[in-house]
This record gives sequence, C-alpha cells and structure tokens, in this order.
Amino acid sequence: MRSTPSSETYDLVADCTGPKSATVTVRDLAVEVDAPETSGGRNRGPTPVEYLLAALAGCVNVTGIHVAREMGIDLDITAVRVSGDLDVSTFRTGEGDRAGYERIGISVEVDTTADAAEIDAWRRETERRNPVLDTIARPTPVEVSISTA
Amino acid sequence: MRSTPSSETYDLVADCTGPKSATVTVRDLAVEVDAPETSGGRNRGPTPVEYLLAALAGCVNVTGIHVAREMGIDLDITAVRVSGDLDVSTFRTGEGDRAGYERIGISVEVDTTADAAEIDAWRRETERRNPVLDTIARPTPVEVSISTA
Repeated sequence: MRSTPSSETYDLVADCTGPKSATVTVRDLAVEVDAPETSGGRNRGPTPVEYLLAALAGCVNVTGIHVAREMGIDLDITAVRVSGDLDVSTFRTGEGDRAGYERIGISVEVDTTADAAEIDAWRRETERRNPVLDTIARPTPVEVSISTA
Repeated sequence: MRSTPSSETYDLVADCTGPKSATVTVRDLAVEVDAPETSGGRNRGPTPVEYLLAALAGCVNVTGIHVAREMGIDLDITAVRVSGDLDVSTFRTGEGDRAGYERIGISVEVDTTADAAEIDAWRRETERRNPVLDTIARPTPVEVSISTA
C-alpha cells in the first residue's frame, strides 16, 4: 500500500450508532458524526459533508503556516471560511448530476507584512501543497469492499 | 452560487488558534482540529487529513442506510473502516507528485439478509450517491481568495 518511500497510511474506524450517526475512533480520539434534529439526528456533531469542509479549513491553516515559514514570509492566518454548494437531489433521489460538492470556496483572512506578489506566490504554493485540497480538487481513487457479519 | 434548484450551501468558519490547530464553528457546534503531541500539537482533535477520512466513513453510513431503505433491502451497517495512503513529502518539502491521498480504501461491515447480487447493486448505488465519496473521487472546483486584516 505504501507506494512511495515517504508515503504514510492513515486509518480509522466508524462505529455506526444510527442511520445518521457514528462514533469515529482516530488514534486515541473520538469524533461524533451526526445530523441536526431537523434532519432526524441528535446534533451531537456535524454531518459528513460539514466535516469535509472542516477538514479543508483546518488544512488551509496548517499548510499555509508551514509554507509561510518555509518561504520566510511574515504571515499569520486568523480565520478560514469555507462554503460549498451541493445538489442534494443525487443523494436523496438518485436523480442529480453528481452527489458531491459542485464548487467549494475558501476565504483566508491573513495578517501579514508581505506584499501582493509575495502573498500570491504563497497562495499558489499553499494550494499546491495542501493535502486535503489536493484530494478534493483532483481525482482520488477510492475502493470500497463489503464484508458481511 | 446555487447552480441548481435543489442545491444547498454549507458553510463554516475556522478560528485559527495555532500553527496546527483551529476551532471550527459549524452551525451551533464546535470542532477541534489539532495535531498529535509528537507532531507539535496538543492532540485536542484529529488532524485535517484524518477528518477527511472521518467525513468519508460517516457518509458511507448515512448514504448506505438511506439507499438500503429506498431499495427495500434489509441491511444494517455496523462499522466502516477507512484507510488512506498519503505521500507527505509534497506537504513537507514540495517535492512529491501530489499532496493528497494517493488511494483511499473503505471496508464496510454489514449485517444483512440480502443476497450477493442485491448487496452488489446496493454497493454501486451507495457509491454513486455518496456526497463525500463523490467529492473526493471526482475533480471538484476549489477557489481560494485571500483578504488581509
């Protein structure tokens, strides 16, 4: 599975506690996936499509600060806003064009002394090296296997 | 932004609390993104690349149960295991081929009275209608904008 020498494997397991809820165990941490009460859940945690955007927001911060330090740019990220448009009809009825996000927008609020050219170079390098953004923006092979109890 | 009548917009904001940590506000919920202590974090929550896999695991459950009910199949999902291989060198040094996951594998444990053909039809429909899986597997446009404080 490790296709390159510097490849690392990440894994986790979701214990499915209900039709819309799961407790995900990641290392020594537990994460609750749920749905709002208006959608039949108990609102113990965000929904899966919200967690995807949260992963992206967090990765913009981590990658952005790492790249700024490497480039020697004085830059701090204060907030990251992420929004995504999703046609829910594919999930609900199977009739839409695609199940996933049609478009995701990220707005990054930075505190910096860098000039516009430096900020632009930082932005491009940050986008290219962001693991979550790259996984979403480019096709990623996903293989599903089923086992019966 | 709503490109189809049934399109919904999801959004959230990450308050960046450190170089590896953020508090993400989703509706009335808060999610902690962090890194293990061995990576310079405080381990208050999973990392962004882990949250991506958690989103996928949760979405396999939600979509799988929804589709099984619609198809009239007696099927319950007990656990979802997700693993992903990621070449960390692109993030770290910029020198790898791609920053994102090279491959993601999902193993779904089901409890069902359905036969193999029904399970296979269910698996295919579930994969096609899974919003998080579709966002990852197919290219998704991501736009980044920067604002300075």
